[in-house]
Amino acid sequence: MSNAVTPVKKVPIHLQSAQTRLLIKGGKIVNDDLMFDGDIYLEDGIIKQVGKDLIIPGGTRTIDAKGKLVIPGGIDTNTHFQLPIMGTRSADDFYHGTKAALAGGTTMIMDCVLESTLSLLESYEKWRSWADEKVCCDYALHVAVTSWNDNIKQDIVILTQKHGINSFKMHMAYKDVYMLRDDQLIEVFKICKALGAVAQVHAENGDIIYENQKKLLDKGITGPEGHIYSRTEEVEAEATNRAIVLANQLNCPLYIVNVMSKNAAKIVARKREEGCIVFGEPIAAGLGTDGTHYFNKCWRHAAGHILSPPLRPDPSTPGCLMDMLASGELQVTGSDNCTFNANQKAMGVSDFTKIPNGVNGVEDRMSVVWERGVMTGKLDPCKFVAVTSTNAAKIFNIYPRKGRIQVGSDADIVIWDPDQTRTISAKTHHHNTDFNIFEGMKCHGVPIYVISQGRLVVEEGQVK
Amino acid sequence: MSNAVTPVKKVPIHLQSAQTRLLIKGGKIVNDDLMFDGDIYLEDGIIKQVGKDLIIPGGTRTIDAKGKLVIPGGIDTNTHFQLPIMGTRSADDFYHGTKAALAGGTTMIMDCVLESTLSLLESYEKWRSWADEKVCCDYALHVAVTSWNDNIKQDIVILTQKHGINSFKMHMAYKDVYMLRDDQLIEVFKICKALGAVAQVHAENGDIIYENQKKLLDKGITGPEGHIYSRTEEVEAEATNRAIVLANQLNCPLYIVNVMSKNAAKIVARKREEGCIVFGEPIAAGLGTDGTHYFNKCWRHAAGHILSPPLRPDPSTPGCLMDMLASGELQVTGSDNCTFNANQKAMGVSDFTKIPNGVNGVEDRMSVVWERGVMTGKLDPCKFVAVTSTNAAKIFNIYPRKGRIQVGSDADIVIWDPDQTRTISAKTHHHNTDFNIFEGMKCHGVPIYVISQGRLVVEEGQVK
Amino acid sequence: MSNAVTPVKKVPIHLQSAQTRLLIKGGKIVNDDLMFDGDIYLEDGIIKQVGKDLIIPGGTRTIDAKGKLVIPGGIDTNTHFQLPIMGTRSADDFYHGTKAALAGGTTMIMDCVLESTLSLLESYEKWRSWADEKVCCDYALHVAVTSWNDNIKQDIVILTQKHGINSFKMHMAYKDVYMLRDDQLIEVFKICKALGAVAQVHAENGDIIYENQKKLLDKGITGPEGHIYSRTEEVEAEATNRAIVLANQLNCPLYIVNVMSKNAAKIVARKREEGCIVFGEPIAAGLGTDGTHYFNKCWRHAAGHILSPPLRPDPSTPGCLMDMLASGELQVTGSDNCTFNANQKAMGVSDFTKIPNGVNGVEDRMSVVWERGVMTGKLDPCKFVAVTSTNAAKIFNIYPRKGRIQVGSDADIVIWDPDQTRTISAKTHHHNTDFNIFEGMKCHGVPIYVISQGRLVVEEGQVK
Amino acid sequence: MSNAVTPVKKVPIHLQSAQTRLLIKGGKIVNDDLMFDGDIYLEDGIIKQVGKDLIIPGGTRTIDAKGKLVIPGGIDTNTHFQLPIMGTRSADDFYHGTKAALAGGTTMIMDCVLESTLSLLESYEKWRSWADEKVCCDYALHVAVTSWNDNIKQDIVILTQKHGINSFKMHMAYKDVYMLRDDQLIEVFKICKALGAVAQVHAENGDIIYENQKKLLDKGITGPEGHIYSRTEEVEAEATNRAIVLANQLNCPLYIVNVMSKNAAKIVARKREEGCIVFGEPIAAGLGTDGTHYFNKCWRHAAGHILSPPLRPDPSTPGCLMDMLASGELQVTGSDNCTFNANQKAMGVSDFTKIPNGVNGVEDRMSVVWERGVMTGKLDPCKFVAVTSTNAAKIFNIYPRKGRIQVGSDADIVIWDPDQTRTISAKTHHHNTDFNIFEGMKCHGVPIYVISQGRLVVEEGQVK
Repeated sequence: MSNAVTPVKKVPIHLQSAQTRLLIKGGKIVNDDLMFDGDIYLEDGIIKQVGKDLIIPGGTRTIDAKGKLVIPGGIDTNTHFQLPIMGTRSADDFYHGTKAALAGGTTMIMDCVLESTLSLLESYEKWRSWADEKVCCDYALHVAVTSWNDNIKQDIVILTQKHGINSFKMHMAYKDVYMLRDDQLIEVFKICKALGAVAQVHAENGDIIYENQKKLLDKGITGPEGHIYSRTEEVEAEATNRAIVLANQLNCPLYIVNVMSKNAAKIVARKREEGCIVFGEPIAAGLGTDGTHYFNKCWRHAAGHILSPPLRPDPSTPGCLMDMLASGELQVTGSDNCTFNANQKAMGVSDFTKIPNGVNGVEDRMSVVWERGVMTGKLDPCKFVAVTSTNAAKIFNIYPRKGRIQVGSDADIVIWDPDQTRTISAKTHHHNTDFNIFEGMKCHGVPIYVISQGRLVVEEGQVK
Repeated sequence: MSNAVTPVKKVPIHLQSAQTRLLIKGGKIVNDDLMFDGDIYLEDGIIKQVGKDLIIPGGTRTIDAKGKLVIPGGIDTNTHFQLPIMGTRSADDFYHGTKAALAGGTTMIMDCVLESTLSLLESYEKWRSWADEKVCCDYALHVAVTSWNDNIKQDIVILTQKHGINSFKMHMAYKDVYMLRDDQLIEVFKICKALGAVAQVHAENGDIIYENQKKLLDKGITGPEGHIYSRTEEVEAEATNRAIVLANQLNCPLYIVNVMSKNAAKIVARKREEGCIVFGEPIAAGLGTDGTHYFNKCWRHAAGHILSPPLRPDPSTPGCLMDMLASGELQVTGSDNCTFNANQKAMGVSDFTKIPNGVNGVEDRMSVVWERGVMTGKLDPCKFVAVTSTNAAKIFNIYPRKGRIQVGSDADIVIWDPDQTRTISAKTHHHNTDFNIFEGMKCHGVPIYVISQGRLVVEEGQVK
Repeated sequence: MSNAVTPVKKVPIHLQSAQTRLLIKGGKIVNDDLMFDGDIYLEDGIIKQVGKDLIIPGGTRTIDAKGKLVIPGGIDTNTHFQLPIMGTRSADDFYHGTKAALAGGTTMIMDCVLESTLSLLESYEKWRSWADEKVCCDYALHVAVTSWNDNIKQDIVILTQKHGINSFKMHMAYKDVYMLRDDQLIEVFKICKALGAVAQVHAENGDIIYENQKKLLDKGITGPEGHIYSRTEEVEAEATNRAIVLANQLNCPLYIVNVMSKNAAKIVARKREEGCIVFGEPIAAGLGTDGTHYFNKCWRHAAGHILSPPLRPDPSTPGCLMDMLASGELQVTGSDNCTFNANQKAMGVSDFTKIPNGVNGVEDRMSVVWERGVMTGKLDPCKFVAVTSTNAAKIFNIYPRKGRIQVGSDADIVIWDPDQTRTISAKTHHHNTDFNIFEGMKCHGVPIYVISQGRLVVEEGQVK
Repeated sequence: MSNAVTPVKKVPIHLQSAQTRLLIKGGKIVNDDLMFDGDIYLEDGIIKQVGKDLIIPGGTRTIDAKGKLVIPGGIDTNTHFQLPIMGTRSADDFYHGTKAALAGGTTMIMDCVLESTLSLLESYEKWRSWADEKVCCDYALHVAVTSWNDNIKQDIVILTQKHGINSFKMHMAYKDVYMLRDDQLIEVFKICKALGAVAQVHAENGDIIYENQKKLLDKGITGPEGHIYSRTEEVEAEATNRAIVLANQLNCPLYIVNVMSKNAAKIVARKREEGCIVFGEPIAAGLGTDGTHYFNKCWRHAAGHILSPPLRPDPSTPGCLMDMLASGELQVTGSDNCTFNANQKAMGVSDFTKIPNGVNGVEDRMSVVWERGVMTGKLDPCKFVAVTSTNAAKIFNIYPRKGRIQVGSDADIVIWDPDQTRTISAKTHHHNTDFNIFEGMKCHGVPIYVISQGRLVVEEGQVK
């Protein structure tokens, strides 16, 4: 999978004590390269044995996985828990967010340190303190770089070498807040390349968006539809192309977060074809729903779907992104989970530019990918594992500790029942919010047991 | 041809008195839509009659065009005569440049006011004074915008409304000299759109070039090959794509000067396919030769081919650009004529970034397009007329006064002998320089008579 | 437009006596290259004068065109009047069909001699006899080649050299009826190339369709939706690509009739980019509606939209085809008019493969192109003229007799009111049928006067 | 990798007794997903232990792999040993061919039963008898289907169900010999789909080639350059596209052998992007050299490079194919090894269509892919393993028995020294021929030890 041959620093994973010995018996084990019948014995948070007729200690609890798939726990590469933004804070904190993750079969999340007022190191420490006291599963952090000077450069070196941070995220949009210009991107790409870190970008042309927002508001277009008018598909595609060219000129591996449109995805694919080292991450929202919701008569419904880059009105977008995951042109799936409640979204009721950007996804990502990928015949279960877990582990250099079921790997495991169904709803989800963009979607594929670091955290579909 | 429905201001054409009555007899008249046998009668610089068995005044001089093609005079959309740049001045001034143009069958040139220290109006006046005293044929001016503020905006309005300037040129490269950033481009595109002017861009990513130049010089790469290493094909393609997206977001028609690479050309074509109003101008150099010359052992030879964007080392480039002129995906041909002598090029002998950028082309453009387009079967004579003359006249709003042989049009006419050949050489060309990038190229198609504004300026291949 | 420099034989145009002298006064004349204010004087079916302050004979009738556009009459490149097919005959005969054409602003149609039991010559004579006694406007004929042997080859030579036929049409679908295989296509392309005729193809892979139809009927899918399932977009695109490659290998200019899908259209464009001489003809149906109708609950409604290749369910198809007409990647518009009444369509009520293939379009083509092309800003009036008339005249070698308003051209002229609107309906159309695929579509642009061969055949919107 | 979820029949692998216990110590083990330091213990032809500090029986021979890579033995998916064709027989028989394979680090080959006169079963038995008495390594067989009738269909069923054949190969070229038409391809694809077998195609349009060959010979073009003129890139690309469409319409997984051109490769990639299940196999020849050799003045040299589809004159082809292996758009590498000596090639000395088609590659494939892939930075060692071994094993359903170093897998292992170099030459190669298309190519990467089924068959670079 990975073209990235750069050795990257180890991501720190904050272990929690694992108390259980477990035997998973009779299931079909699915890795990204193979499905096979076998049992798994776990101890001390580690996979100790895989195979048949295992010899295990007495008193070990046995989970019956007959007729079920046994898969590596999901890795969500892109969350924003308790993020301070636009004068508020995203509704899911590290507790609710990771609990929702586990409920959905995701056993590791990667959040993003995103702050434009403190130093990178200070911001990093803040995120660590927030997360460490609340997380229910393993996590890692990307660190956003939102301006450029020598101190920032120095902090990047320290974060990489002392704190094991191996991915930095840059925004090409959010002018005057997070946006970097090309000459600044060049500097960050240079240091990432030198350190062996992955450069990530949010790819939208901020100058165009700024201009479009002004123009639309001037014309009296204040509703959620203004969001999509100001951030069209080519605005995303242009920035995607530019970022890849800049990174390629500097031989820096690049990771595009939130690939939301067919055109952006195809640019990733074409540039990979030309030899560029670039990865594309579509998210649950983009794979499971589309931008026709922005024209919904209900303001709250429309506003509830606002994120950036936006969902695309072209209804063939989700199917195309899934096809490209299947073909290997896109590699991983995240969620960009950044939830807000009705009263928070309402901040933008008279000005779409003030609607907090973000939707859910960390809980439902696995189900959405299964329903739209496997049930449609686009993905086989191995590929499902690849795009929900293994590929992420490889790119961020935590494979095979994560992303694979084999002796010695972390005991992050999901027992997946492909025959059960569940219907997604804000009434039953584990998010700290009143809205779910997948409301009413019936999904095959239910995580009936979830094991995080060797502990059984979901049993019979219930989070403990 | 033109998707541009914007009414644009009239280009001022500085007429010269026309003294001759002329009858062109027995030729095959070629317009962009049709070839037909017919005679042409000219008077007072205007085409008065077209057809057979014309009734004309006694004493009219008759030119025998039997077996020859009679075509509208060429229009070169892109020249830089006596341009002050990099501490020197391009070798062809308006006299030598327009004389060379006429010698090659081009009866109108469009030069570019390019100055970064004076106001736009002052610069314009300077160019007018230089040109008016020296030109041998009609001309028009584009005006380059190299920074942005309210005075510049005001000057653009005046130039358009008082002086009939309908095209403005912006550079995405030449950082710290001419380069505009995206937010500045947006402002220029907005005013162009409002005024009905054509926005032109030189499309290369200046930040990347700047970075690459530093890196190469640091590594001790100082020769002409550094030019091509620092300005790769994707550096041009990226900027081309970005310019088109920016202009399209503002509904501003766009014209890409110097389309030098297959990738840039294909981006123009794909964006046209999506409905963008964009035109692409390959130049004589890019159609007639390629970037393998940068690796020539002779420094002067390699340096002699330096222009920006550079010629591409991929030898299939010229053929591809010609195919795209044939298919209508590219529309016009210029020359970017900006010549320098050996001692001028030598300014960059120890640093490729100091080699003055520019090559010849205004004289040989018509022959090169004929040889590589018509002789290869890619263009028929009508299409040849379209890409060397008619399409330019349409885009810059001087059609059918220019670019067509019909009653009422200007008497800018070339008698073209498709059977004669000539061999291009610095020894025989009319440029004020010691080097010709097409040296030794044997071309079919010779302009044996050239009529500019009704006056016979080339007879039997000799400039008068 | 045409890259095809092959001199082709003259299309026979069957003139009708023209009795009227007419002056069209005060309008804006639109050719494909220019709009200008001017008057037109017609006599004996020919345009005699174009300009201002014309001196004309007394007693000439004057038509006031103030505020109107005066355009060359439309040319419909693709009709099937009174076609014997599938055990029935298309409802519009040459009388009704050409009357409908004139009502819509089309003054010339090109029908297709399509017979698989008689010799080509006999078939041709049959069509001539049918048409000559009934047509209300000029026409020309394409001749379909549906099998291959030496007699057919001989007939092609005779048709070209004696009867002025310069286009032959081959089907890649309709297995066991009209379909030619690759080795037969090669033979036809060779003789077309040798004679200077245009080769036309109906591009769908007949083997796949045959297989799909069997499979669908076996599964009990008998309704109209089976039509689209059996003839998917890639079935058209594959054949389009193959036809172009075959023709290109033989240097034979090719014309794709009925370009119905985005993928097929893009293949035409890409192959043109590579230097292939190929033209693409979208039709009124494909530009004005889409394949979502095949899923309409009303059988008659769904069946009423059946033609081949089918309309595409992707709703962005019509807009894309129009964009590609605008960019010049597609060149002409036809209608493939081949209408059937409810009782005829009902022949396929229990088997979709027995539904007669065909829809209307000859009357509404001009309005549909105006509404979807000009009103959306994609086409200017010049480009509208190009794609509805001029380009067809050029490709089929009847330019500038047809397709242009200039002295000497045929007096086929339409006075077009861009401000009027009309609503298309089967209740008011001039077809001999009970169904219109554009039912209820409101179109700007109405042909208020239509002049065919100098005779005023539509006045104030009424056909005489 | 594989989207093909169809369970396919097991390929019979003809084991040879393995006599050795071996310990490979101190090397870097490379699988397609990971590189890690470790030792390997082999016994009875099987990998028994992988890891560090292994406990192994006394008397085990130890191979020191310090500083070396330890990789799964190569799998060559495409050979033609002792193939009767064009009145002769390919020079490498199963003995020389498999010996050459082992010398180069390939421990399994897949040959093709290609016969057009016997029944499929008879042909299969013949190939088995040839191979079983001579092979030096594991092998499998594809079976070519060269016509169509019910007996053939029956034989396919038997071959699959009784003999474990899971891949059938069809030719779209070689008219009147092996070529199938579309309707026949459809039938084979249907039965392959039903049985779970992989359909393979040789993709070139045979009708065009036949026509081109006639035309060229008629014009007196008889030399090797006629080969490339008659089989241009678009002839391959057309057939590639058609095969994929046909297979996709029938939901049959498809495998394109010998992807020789950029255009064909890009079609594979685009179709994968659309969701088609298709695999592309470039070969050593296409990755290591190019078609400029067809214009070599030496007839024997030019003829020595003749295979079909031919090498492409575009010198950027090999690099592009390697980029597409790197990006995952192409998946496997074969060799199409089919060698002929000078006197055999000479059969076509006065007619290029009679030159036996074929080149070497089975010995040098691994080195060529390393040199052009890994040494250029396009592939990391994991990807190298994927495209030379693992992906083939997955597609043909013999993974993880082949293609991976893990406990339980076959002991087919190569100790690869990335620092050594060797120069390819006919003088030193193990083929039974006097010519090598890679003559003089210096390659990094040498297989110093090769273990086939647990036996050490190459030691210190010498074949035993």
